[in-house]
Amino acid sequence: MDQAVLLPAGFTAAGVTCGVKDPQSPKKDLAVFVSDRPCAAAGVFTTNLVCGAPVKVSRERLPRATTRALVINSGNANACTGEQGLADARAMTAAVAHGLSCPAEDVLVASTGVIGRFLPLDRIVAGIGRALSVRSSEPAALRDAATAMMTTDTVPKLASRELALRGTTVRVTGVCKGAAMIAPNMATMLCALLTDVAVSPSQAFELLTGGVRDSFNCISVDGHESTSDSVFLLANGAAGVEPTRAEEWQAVQTAVNEVAQDLAMAIIRDAEGAHHFVQLDVTGCRTRDEAFRIAKTIAESPLVKTAICGADPNWGRVVSAAGYAGVPLREEDLSLTMNGFPLYAAGRPLAFDAAAVSHSLRENRDVHIELRLTLGSAGVRFWTSDLTKEYVELNADYTT
Amino acid sequence: MDQAVLLPAGFTAAGVTCGVKDPQSPKKDLAVFVSDRPCAAAGVFTTNLVCGAPVKVSRERLPRATTRALVINSGNANACTGEQGLADARAMTAAVAHGLSCPAEDVLVASTGVIGRFLPLDRIVAGIGRALSVRSSEPAALRDAATAMMTTDTVPKLASRELALRGTTVRVTGVCKGAAMIAPNMATMLCALLTDVAVSPSQAFELLTGGVRDSFNCISVDGHESTSDSVFLLANGAAGVEPTRAEEWQAVQTAVNEVAQDLAMAIIRDAEGAHHFVQLDVTGCRTRDEAFRIAKTIAESPLVKTAICGADPNWGRVVSAAGYAGVPLREEDLSLTMNGFPLYAAGRPLAFDAAAVSHSLRENRDVHIELRLTLGSAGVRFWTSDLTKEYVELNADYTT
Repeated sequence: MDQAVLLPAGFTAAGVTCGVKDPQSPKKDLAVFVSDRPCAAAGVFTTNLVCGAPVKVSRERLPRATTRALVINSGNANACTGEQGLADARAMTAAVAHGLSCPAEDVLVASTGVIGRFLPLDRIVAGIGRALSVRSSEPAALRDAATAMMTTDTVPKLASRELALRGTTVRVTGVCKGAAMIAPNMATMLCALLTDVAVSPSQAFELLTGGVRDSFNCISVDGHESTSDSVFLLANGAAGVEPTRAEEWQAVQTAVNEVAQDLAMAIIRDAEGAHHFVQLDVTGCRTRDEAFRIAKTIAESPLVKTAICGADPNWGRVVSAAGYAGVPLREEDLSLTMNGFPLYAAGRPLAFDAAAVSHSLRENRDVHIELRLTLGSAGVRFWTSDLTKEYVELNADYTT
Repeated sequence: MDQAVLLPAGFTAAGVTCGVKDPQSPKKDLAVFVSDRPCAAAGVFTTNLVCGAPVKVSRERLPRATTRALVINSGNANACTGEQGLADARAMTAAVAHGLSCPAEDVLVASTGVIGRFLPLDRIVAGIGRALSVRSSEPAALRDAATAMMTTDTVPKLASRELALRGTTVRVTGVCKGAAMIAPNMATMLCALLTDVAVSPSQAFELLTGGVRDSFNCISVDGHESTSDSVFLLANGAAGVEPTRAEEWQAVQTAVNEVAQDLAMAIIRDAEGAHHFVQLDVTGCRTRDEAFRIAKTIAESPLVKTAICGADPNWGRVVSAAGYAGVPLREEDLSLTMNGFPLYAAGRPLAFDAAAVSHSLRENRDVHIELRLTLGSAGVRFWTSDLTKEYVELNADYTT
């Protein structure tokens, strides 16, 4: 087991088995995160217009100053389930609220797994009772919760940062799941960010959107947007300290950003079937949005992704993807390196040792692509994976 | 060999071997299409801002009333080759013009194959001389020309329609190449549409854009836009008849549309590594553009494409792709069938025999997906292929 990740003060967690995934299986599939006092809470959700019932229920409860808990099940996304799905999602929050003696509206909910099926609500409600009774502030409990969120993930994903705020140690801790946007039976990435800093709900939303922008919004495996993506931030103030000065805010924002980036990169490292982890730096653009559009277009091109899988230093696929990203540019504006090897400069292919570049791509799991433009000073960092036969196998396999 | 496809009156063609692909190989790699008199000509080209030299040269010569010929080489796309690439493309047209005793500006050019390398111009010019000397109006010559355009295509692609215009038989004949937008060493689809109808250059452009809209613009293998895509229409008037009345125009437009659709479908049927040919009908939209955006998003989702590869009737992937297409809609607006089986209606999954649907998907190369909305009466028909391990193999293979 890797280094223990600690919960912030005032939080407890649990992950238990309640038989959503498979009544016969010992796999954990229900997680709870509870604060001993009200939290400022914020959320960001999938922009897919076809979205799961838990997204609808949680979305209408945020932002909020009195959130107490988040409950997550894996194995069933409770999506495309109509009125009964909404009732089931609300019932999950009511079961948690009952155990905590708080209003149901102070509980958030998320689900991930197969879509189009009703939840086994009795088993989930029973599981919620057990989870609330065993929850604790120990690292093992947090790890159980992270494990209970997993679907096709091969490892639980946790990250944390500590910082000192006027002599007090505060913590930002996050857990997430996702083998990228994709999974054999439907997509999802879910994330809970917890902190003991004291902030208002609108400040929580600001921290969250700041953190999501350069992390979860900068990853893609295949560009297929889930119906269930949800990222929550819960801030309970249990550390007894509130950021007030600009540099304190900056320090907290940086901690949130770093935790979110660690988790986003963990998703890409665990992407289904992937052989390579690709970091893509696009710089020299007029605006961040233009850099982002170029990066996303490159990251989602199956031709770029298969070239990386095949250790092929195919600069033409990268450059031509930039050309159809919808950003005004000229070939002469583009220069490209892969793993530090210059392949293309100012619109011209360079002479390079193809065998050496290919060897570098083959021998390193991490690939670094740098595309530099000459249009301005804005840039973006984006992460993606390669496209492999294993990805096709995993997703073509008829499993229902 | 399938049924002989005839050239329209006044046209000759040839396909020869000049050693662009491989000096040792007998593979044909140079095609010419020549009219015995001036043509009204129009072209549409890739919108990629990184585009090949032949695209730049041909684009500036169209529309035109005096075009005499089109020359195409495969094996080298002459893209990302700077000033020398432009000079080489112009030299190809000059060599043809020399043989025909016409201005170089009356000759169009296209290239497909690897990018970033200079053309072997001497071999090409020698090949042009041979091609001009052996060109003929015979079906075999046209087939040679279609063969000489091929890169990763497994079959030459030809189509033709005849119609009677005031008692005179006129013909629209097309040839194209493309294993969809993609190829191991770079992308391209090229197409030449030839007709002996008499039209003006602006009418030629109208016929061409009308024909391209519902054919080549409605296919996708992987959404990676080529640097070289070019579709030309040459109308030489050799049949001695000009469409004037609305119904005559309609008949000619229909012939152009049908030839273009035949060729576009031939590209998808030959898509790299594909096991399935997918026809996607999206109907009930407010506008064609909205239907198009939904269809393209579904067609380019790797999750939808792998599901079809795996004979998985995964309605969730199709419906959720519609949800992130950027078109305002509600789940209740959506109903879906696959191969005639209703899977989802008015926002609800239906009970269906999954084994029977899967069997139908497995046993039929052709897949028909119908997504009906309730927002209006506009629709679109789109063609795509599935995503297979063979596609990954073909495109991950490091070949240079």
